[in-house]
Amino acid sequence: MKKLCVIFLVLLSANTWAQSKLDHVDPLFWFTGMKNPKLQLLVHGKNIKGYTAKLDYPGVKLVEVHQVENPNYLFIDLEISAAAKAGKFPISFMENGKKKFDYSYELKNRDASPSRIQGVTNKDLIYLLMPDRFANGDPSNDKVKGLAEQTLNRDSMYYRHGGDIQGVMNHLDYFKDLGVTTLWMTPEVENDMPKASYHGYAVTDHYQIDPRYGTNALFKAYVEKAHANGLKIIKDIVHNHIGTGHWIFKDLPMKDWVNQWPVYTQSSYRDEPVMDPHAAEGDRKKMLDGWFVPTMPDLNERNPYVQNYLTQNHIWWIEYAGIDGLRLDTYPYNEPAYMADWATKLKAEFPHLSIFGETLVNSVASQAYFTQGNTVSRGLDTQLPGVTDNMLKNTFYEALNGKSGWTDGIFRLYTVLSQDFLYQDANRNAIFLDNHDMSRFYSLIKEDINKYKSGIALLLTMRGVPQLYYGTEILMKNFSDPDGLVRSDFPGGWAGDKMSKFTAAGRTPQENEAFNYVSKLAHFRQQSPALQSGKLIQYVPEDGIYVYFRTTDAGTKSVMVILNAEDKAKTLKTARFAGQMKNTTSLSNVISGEKLKTNTEIAVPAQTTLVLELN
Amino acid sequence: MKKLCVIFLVLLSANTWAQSKLDHVDPLFWFTGMKNPKLQLLVHGKNIKGYTAKLDYPGVKLVEVHQVENPNYLFIDLEISAAAKAGKFPISFMENGKKKFDYSYELKNRDASPSRIQGVTNKDLIYLLMPDRFANGDPSNDKVKGLAEQTLNRDSMYYRHGGDIQGVMNHLDYFKDLGVTTLWMTPEVENDMPKASYHGYAVTDHYQIDPRYGTNALFKAYVEKAHANGLKIIKDIVHNHIGTGHWIFKDLPMKDWVNQWPVYTQSSYRDEPVMDPHAAEGDRKKMLDGWFVPTMPDLNERNPYVQNYLTQNHIWWIEYAGIDGLRLDTYPYNEPAYMADWATKLKAEFPHLSIFGETLVNSVASQAYFTQGNTVSRGLDTQLPGVTDNMLKNTFYEALNGKSGWTDGIFRLYTVLSQDFLYQDANRNAIFLDNHDMSRFYSLIKEDINKYKSGIALLLTMRGVPQLYYGTEILMKNFSDPDGLVRSDFPGGWAGDKMSKFTAAGRTPQENEAFNYVSKLAHFRQQSPALQSGKLIQYVPEDGIYVYFRTTDAGTKSVMVILNAEDKAKTLKTARFAGQMKNTTSLSNVISGEKLKTNTEIAVPAQTTLVLELN
Repeated sequence: MKKLCVIFLVLLSANTWAQSKLDHVDPLFWFTGMKNPKLQLLVHGKNIKGYTAKLDYPGVKLVEVHQVENPNYLFIDLEISAAAKAGKFPISFMENGKKKFDYSYELKNRDASPSRIQGVTNKDLIYLLMPDRFANGDPSNDKVKGLAEQTLNRDSMYYRHGGDIQGVMNHLDYFKDLGVTTLWMTPEVENDMPKASYHGYAVTDHYQIDPRYGTNALFKAYVEKAHANGLKIIKDIVHNHIGTGHWIFKDLPMKDWVNQWPVYTQSSYRDEPVMDPHAAEGDRKKMLDGWFVPTMPDLNERNPYVQNYLTQNHIWWIEYAGIDGLRLDTYPYNEPAYMADWATKLKAEFPHLSIFGETLVNSVASQAYFTQGNTVSRGLDTQLPGVTDNMLKNTFYEALNGKSGWTDGIFRLYTVLSQDFLYQDANRNAIFLDNHDMSRFYSLIKEDINKYKSGIALLLTMRGVPQLYYGTEILMKNFSDPDGLVRSDFPGGWAGDKMSKFTAAGRTPQENEAFNYVSKLAHFRQQSPALQSGKLIQYVPEDGIYVYFRTTDAGTKSVMVILNAEDKAKTLKTARFAGQMKNTTSLSNVISGEKLKTNTEIAVPAQTTLVLELN
Repeated sequence: MKKLCVIFLVLLSANTWAQSKLDHVDPLFWFTGMKNPKLQLLVHGKNIKGYTAKLDYPGVKLVEVHQVENPNYLFIDLEISAAAKAGKFPISFMENGKKKFDYSYELKNRDASPSRIQGVTNKDLIYLLMPDRFANGDPSNDKVKGLAEQTLNRDSMYYRHGGDIQGVMNHLDYFKDLGVTTLWMTPEVENDMPKASYHGYAVTDHYQIDPRYGTNALFKAYVEKAHANGLKIIKDIVHNHIGTGHWIFKDLPMKDWVNQWPVYTQSSYRDEPVMDPHAAEGDRKKMLDGWFVPTMPDLNERNPYVQNYLTQNHIWWIEYAGIDGLRLDTYPYNEPAYMADWATKLKAEFPHLSIFGETLVNSVASQAYFTQGNTVSRGLDTQLPGVTDNMLKNTFYEALNGKSGWTDGIFRLYTVLSQDFLYQDANRNAIFLDNHDMSRFYSLIKEDINKYKSGIALLLTMRGVPQLYYGTEILMKNFSDPDGLVRSDFPGGWAGDKMSKFTAAGRTPQENEAFNYVSKLAHFRQQSPALQSGKLIQYVPEDGIYVYFRTTDAGTKSVMVILNAEDKAKTLKTARFAGQMKNTTSLSNVISGEKLKTNTEIAVPAQTTLVLELN
């Protein structure tokens, strides 16, 4: 934007010329009718420290102008009353009592359409993808002049591949065919970093979609098109850190905008000091304030200007584009008190919004610690509705691959679920088999199609909001070491790809077997109240078999899931499950459609998960 | 008692003859001045169902006489006002309006001496022993006629060995020499079972000390002698089950005194259904109501008569003998609502009483679930102050024997402690390295004296109430499989033993090295406010070294503990611990007494735990 201004400078009026003194005014615009009347503008322009500001617009009050360490910034506090109407108005910047220039700021109407900001619940199936690696819908934006990374090379996992938002928009039918209801892209905002910028978590401009993915307007159009197709959108956001290429980092408003250390200090990646009643203060500081990596400065979330900047940015995106849920990166690394305040403010504006915090921790207790209403985090409620359920993910692998001991194998799955008492509501957790930061599911189960189906069956019938990683449905494989291999391109996403896995014809028979299994169960789930919102009832595993039910009080059909994790076929007697089966006249296999011959004994093949509907 | 009555029958008056119609009246007597005015007598005698009862004693009101299924029982509800005075009074049993006989019941004064019922805290060191296996102070009670088991054989781990309460009383100086402050014997009440009766957990009379251990009066004398010697006493009690040899089980007051099953049903030993929000009702019932083993009937703790009988029994023992704490066997197998009520009633009578519930579970969350004020067990507070900390015990071994991974080895110890936020106060937990139900510490660390000292150092400097298992101080060893091997006799406890480990002269040099290490640290602990009640501050392990401090706010000397779990010597730089060391002028090694040369770098030998005092 700055560059454009310079080019057109000669053509513009004095007033517009003056406006160009400001390199950034964030948020780009704001909205009428917000629950919180306060707004803090970050104003960035060469040596503007000496300016005062004033405005005259009905319902908008300029409360205070803050000068800070860096003379290139002002922070302007506004108060916007409920009576304020949408429209543009000038903010006048004054020096020695004389107006030097106006900046035209805009208030837009909030959009209360019911298709927007719906929330993502147990009824949904989330599909996680990396936009650079899914589909290239607009080759014209593959390389963008002026950005730090100019390498485009699909043969390397570290360079840009050219995927973009248009690519995702082009395949909405594919998601619907698969039974997906919600899309989650890794961050789409600008990552103008010289290396591995495809990764997306080193934000360099909070208010711009990365031009290699599209524009802000295209992102909004993507959300709207998804909604029109019955799909929902999750946005992936990062509170904890930014990229060293962020324009704010290059010209910090104040030294403590980021957490400064005498020498570079990395986070310990240990969440324990955050919750440990015995923690040493230094350990807590290292976890929270240490940098994630040298290229990702750690934001000082105790700084109220940083707090306002982040919180407003997230509110802005939700209201602007109408997104349905947020995924919060590296949740435990954030300042707990700020995160609680943040969530409270977001939920006040958007009561239906869903939020999932990434918590890559090692116990249910520490995972639950970070959630709302858990009651274990004495004195602080994070207000975080749910997490990405790493502990449950681990137990899926224990159940599929593990040995069968007193606490191992299916017992680990069983016992971890039994600890759901630590959460206010574990149904708000996103559950998953894999994601972009770990080895792929199909590789971790040694490319065993039976275990694959078992894992998918667990994912799509368990409590929580299931999340699939792109390509799992077509048996994409690889290990997370070396980095990037699990982020391969989706075959068919690029013009000229030898084959397209978007269509049955392009998939191998085994890929179709996998795709159809996912699709069958995902679509069954869409019409099964028991799987969508039913209570989970689980039984202590016996004889290598783990059984659970999903059931509603509303008289809808219950679902019974039977996991035989052992290498031999079993016969399960059902007398023990009378509490759940007393009114059952017959059982049908959800995948095959077959009706079982008897209700009293069920044949369960080796290494198999059966999904049965109770009639 | 019944047998004696029959023999002397001809010599007794008619009134006394009538009293002999009653085989049992429990509690044997009661106390004035209890907070709870209610008392329910269990009255047992052949065909007494048709009798009514009355009494006339100031302050004592007979509220109701309950008939039950079995005609041999009556339950009599009394109310004892604050005005009631100690004394004996007759309860008259009537038939058709005519008195048939009197039973003389007694109220004794409560004993409020300050040496009684003191509680067992972080300041203490508990010594757990099995009375049959520690010392034989009275060979005359080794075999008792009329009891089911008559085998006395010290060559077998399954038979009686002859140890007794007098044997323990004979060695109070040994405990003081070792630095122990509290004794816990496995149950001393009657276990008149035909096999392995030494084990003690199959109670056959709640109101009688097993005659092979002594008498009720001797038990009271044991507690009093301990108190006079500055030692405290924990009593081990069993709520969940009794032995099949229990006189009540042989003539059940009502069928549902115990949990009845159509066919024998064993507990699943799975605590998860007790807390699992997804639990199936049948799984919960099997855990709680299933029998522990075929010889131990499971008491129905939902039966109010059973509730009164157990609760009163425990109150009776505490008030009668003046004991300081209770250890509750198999805590998770008990009915939660009853246990909460039980603890509330006991704490009302004895505010200083300590209580430790045995919770052999597999996660901190489930362990904490069973504790008072944990806030995770929504809707029910167990009122249980502390548990026997199985999870911490496991991590001691992880730290001493484990590999060094991201969550293994010393990290497991560190992370489990970090989850203390789940407890209201983890300091109330008893912590231990081993007990009578598991392999001995010295064997589990492969008889490595360095690891031995490390483990002892952890035990005696960590938060919680440390508990030592008898013989650990003289390097007794063995594995729990086959059963009983870890319950060997303490050498020197029997007249004629080849050697006595009660004296330094009888111990080998290595045994003395171990004994002296324990004793040195235990006595240091007795005068260190930091170790006795100081706050724990722990640091994230780095470079294979785990460091924690114990510190008070009162300006007393802090203690620093450094565990190097690796096979090579290390040098620890202390700059990181400035928060705890800023006022430290010098460090002394608590065991050797040596003053360290510098505060800035500490040499830590391989596989060693240093305990340092900050001066």
